[in-house]
Amino acid sequence: MTAYTVQQLADLVAGTVEGDASRRVEGVASVDRAGPTDLTFVMNQRNARRLRQGAAAACLVTPDLDLDANGTVCIRVANPELAFTRILDVFHPEQPSDPGIHPTAIVGRGTRIGSGASVGPYVTIGDNSVIGEGSQIGPHTHIDDDVVIGQDCRVGPGCTILHDTRVGDRVRLYAGVRLGVDGFGYTPGADGLTRIPQVGRCLIDDDVEIGANSTVDRGALGDTVVGRGTKIDNLVHVAHNVTIGEGCIVVAQVGIAGSVEVGAGSQLGGQAGIAGHLTIGPGARIGAQAGVIGDVPAAAVYSGYPARPHREALRASAGSLRLHEVLRRLSELERRLEGEGE
Amino acid sequence: MTAYTVQQLADLVAGTVEGDASRRVEGVASVDRAGPTDLTFVMNQRNARRLRQGAAAACLVTPDLDLDANGTVCIRVANPELAFTRILDVFHPEQPSDPGIHPTAIVGRGTRIGSGASVGPYVTIGDNSVIGEGSQIGPHTHIDDDVVIGQDCRVGPGCTILHDTRVGDRVRLYAGVRLGVDGFGYTPGADGLTRIPQVGRCLIDDDVEIGANSTVDRGALGDTVVGRGTKIDNLVHVAHNVTIGEGCIVVAQVGIAGSVEVGAGSQLGGQAGIAGHLTIGPGARIGAQAGVIGDVPAAAVYSGYPARPHREALRASAGSLRLHEVLRRLSELERRLEGEGE
Amino acid sequence: MTAYTVQQLADLVAGTVEGDASRRVEGVASVDRAGPTDLTFVMNQRNARRLRQGAAAACLVTPDLDLDANGTVCIRVANPELAFTRILDVFHPEQPSDPGIHPTAIVGRGTRIGSGASVGPYVTIGDNSVIGEGSQIGPHTHIDDDVVIGQDCRVGPGCTILHDTRVGDRVRLYAGVRLGVDGFGYTPGADGLTRIPQVGRCLIDDDVEIGANSTVDRGALGDTVVGRGTKIDNLVHVAHNVTIGEGCIVVAQVGIAGSVEVGAGSQLGGQAGIAGHLTIGPGARIGAQAGVIGDVPAAAVYSGYPARPHREALRASAGSLRLHEVLRRLSELERRLEGEGE
Repeated sequence: MTAYTVQQLADLVAGTVEGDASRRVEGVASVDRAGPTDLTFVMNQRNARRLRQGAAAACLVTPDLDLDANGTVCIRVANPELAFTRILDVFHPEQPSDPGIHPTAIVGRGTRIGSGASVGPYVTIGDNSVIGEGSQIGPHTHIDDDVVIGQDCRVGPGCTILHDTRVGDRVRLYAGVRLGVDGFGYTPGADGLTRIPQVGRCLIDDDVEIGANSTVDRGALGDTVVGRGTKIDNLVHVAHNVTIGEGCIVVAQVGIAGSVEVGAGSQLGGQAGIAGHLTIGPGARIGAQAGVIGDVPAAAVYSGYPARPHREALRASAGSLRLHEVLRRLSELERRLEGEGE
Repeated sequence: MTAYTVQQLADLVAGTVEGDASRRVEGVASVDRAGPTDLTFVMNQRNARRLRQGAAAACLVTPDLDLDANGTVCIRVANPELAFTRILDVFHPEQPSDPGIHPTAIVGRGTRIGSGASVGPYVTIGDNSVIGEGSQIGPHTHIDDDVVIGQDCRVGPGCTILHDTRVGDRVRLYAGVRLGVDGFGYTPGADGLTRIPQVGRCLIDDDVEIGANSTVDRGALGDTVVGRGTKIDNLVHVAHNVTIGEGCIVVAQVGIAGSVEVGAGSQLGGQAGIAGHLTIGPGARIGAQAGVIGDVPAAAVYSGYPARPHREALRASAGSLRLHEVLRRLSELERRLEGEGE
Repeated sequence: MTAYTVQQLADLVAGTVEGDASRRVEGVASVDRAGPTDLTFVMNQRNARRLRQGAAAACLVTPDLDLDANGTVCIRVANPELAFTRILDVFHPEQPSDPGIHPTAIVGRGTRIGSGASVGPYVTIGDNSVIGEGSQIGPHTHIDDDVVIGQDCRVGPGCTILHDTRVGDRVRLYAGVRLGVDGFGYTPGADGLTRIPQVGRCLIDDDVEIGANSTVDRGALGDTVVGRGTKIDNLVHVAHNVTIGEGCIVVAQVGIAGSVEVGAGSQLGGQAGIAGHLTIGPGARIGAQAGVIGDVPAAAVYSGYPARPHREALRASAGSLRLHEVLRRLSELERRLEGEGE
């Protein structure tokens, strides 16, 4: 088992030790599960109280939080969660796949696999594609013709990346992600609905992550774009010609209809739906399950169905609970006026 | 690069040229991105205005639309979008897979593969199944025993088609579709919930398309049926014993509970949910995110939760914004009546 | 074709025959489709009426239901549906896969495959994992390092089970299930959102079933847990550190956010969403599409958005339809008071 002194860990995150810097740390844990050889972290007084009842080896804590820690050694840092994340990597380093192309992988003509890249068992890659240096392609993933995957990506298992898709560097596509699927476009023809060929592309920028079983359609004519650093959760649907800006957070089961533009830094809550051709302004926050059927201004907070400013939605929701009372009071007034009229 | 004259393209769609019919077209693009060698289309005056600022080679346009196109050649047709779709196929023909059975595909006893069909790498097919002529089965797809797939289908990559499923002709199943999965049926037994064996089938008619990662359960006793020409988007759930009629549109993330009947020509908006055992009349339109908990008449337009006629839903929604005002006016009336009573 | 006498089937389920016990039964069917050689069942008078118009060979029926069955033989049992389920297994026994490891399966070092287990074509299993006796792993499934799968499980096709996941006995994971995927955890860093390593596990207890294309994330630090006998439908999302108790029912497309605790015996309706860090009390029932943003007491019935006690939600919903009327009556009162004031 790997172990570190509190001082070694503090040095990693440029923290200041209060207490026995030579104490031995063997693992990491949340504040309510930390044992005598674990490092943990607290962000606020409420969490700090849970620590008092525990007995961690050491605790990452903000510079000014008052920690009555019963002998737990403190490491003071500006952002304890970020520091903890850094130390998590030390105790739980990711297991890289073996570099090289597995003998069962099928790689097409003209496809280049970068140095240090790993192509797993039963992967299929078409012609004229590129897998960047250090990228890892998990088992049963299919990559089509003319796809470009950047460096240090992690793809799969079981992903599908269709032709002409572009994926940047350090992108993570979790199990079952489908990129560049035909969008949902039909037009009434003589013989029922006629499929509109979907000839655009799917462009995924650097540092994007996409959760398990999520789907991103290719563009119909133009492209579907997911901006740099955007994080998408599981089972999300991104339709054709959507543009998602940089640094957005898209929580599980969100659905974004065709040609929507989501501004940079927006957050879409779980199961929210955005109707087609709308614009979500930069920095907007859309509540979970919200149904957005109109444009949302920059930095606005919207919720409910139909989605509206969160304060209005709350007021309408609270009011709906008082409808019974309204009807009673109204009837009472009517009765009194009737009485007077007699 | 393939290029055509405007006249050649007009002939393809039986259109009439206004302007230089010999002009050269090298590609297709949407109206706001069309360049000097692109063909585009406009359906109405609003789009036409966007063209004026562009500089397309040629534009498909309705017979009567007034197009001040700054030198763009017009091709007049009854339905510009449909004509455009036809021409898209010319510039972006689908790449068929190579016919034949890939050496890594595993095909069971008694299974017949039609002529011109393509069975991709690492496909597994059970016993006594049929793959129709010209159908293409993508990599990592699993087809079970006793499955019938019609002609000219496109399946996969990564699909699962379980035993006894029937798929018609010209069906497209996108990546990760699961057909014929056991339905969600349990009954309380002595030892907790007991699984009810799901012994019905999953029947997909001609010209159906099903989007990425969607699931269609097999019937419990009877069958689950998707009618001819129906189009289903990504991440849709169709439960056991559902019947969807012909020519329906089912948008992404819709959920249809067990034994629902959806009439022909219905449209279900994204993320809508239909509770079990209900009937949606033919030609009904269900709004996005609607929660349907009662039958919907033919040709009705329903929305909201619980779903009701769209006009009522709109009125209720608008009214909820006025609750604050209602409470204020009510209190004012009560105050005045109190005052009079003194 | 296998056939049984009514008496043989009655013996299987400890039922009492009324009528010709020697009658031949060749299959099973629902009450509205049963033919002259089929066994069916009815649970109540309403279904019984549908039988009268049919002509089943025999019918499972409760001890006291009055069945005017036109010659259909009755088998009286306490729970006809449960008895029917038992007989379904007789007519439609599940086809087990051939035991053994398919030559195309890839099995890592130190991995043990139990006796009678079946590992299908193109399955990949990492190092130091265990597949229990009699378990069946379907094609294209990937099982990572250090995974334990219990006995008599059915997994796949096309599932992904990531490292350190524990799966109990008799568990069924339908096509495309993803277990132990990284949870959705990020913290703002200097360079945008920084991924928080997800180092917890995913623990699935005995007799759990998980529907097609559903995803269960691994814990961030602690574990994600699904309790014994819980049944999860298709396209469900279970986030990191969720705990679901025993014997719960989670219907299709439900989303459960991080660190939620769902009490034993709870039922979550289709497309319902539970916000993070909440507690759903044991035996609670959450309506379809409900949006839960606060704790739910034990045995409570909640619905709507935001979810509240079902009766309140119904009242608010009914009231919202009367808002138009409220406004009209209010204006009328105001007019009358104005008139009096003159």
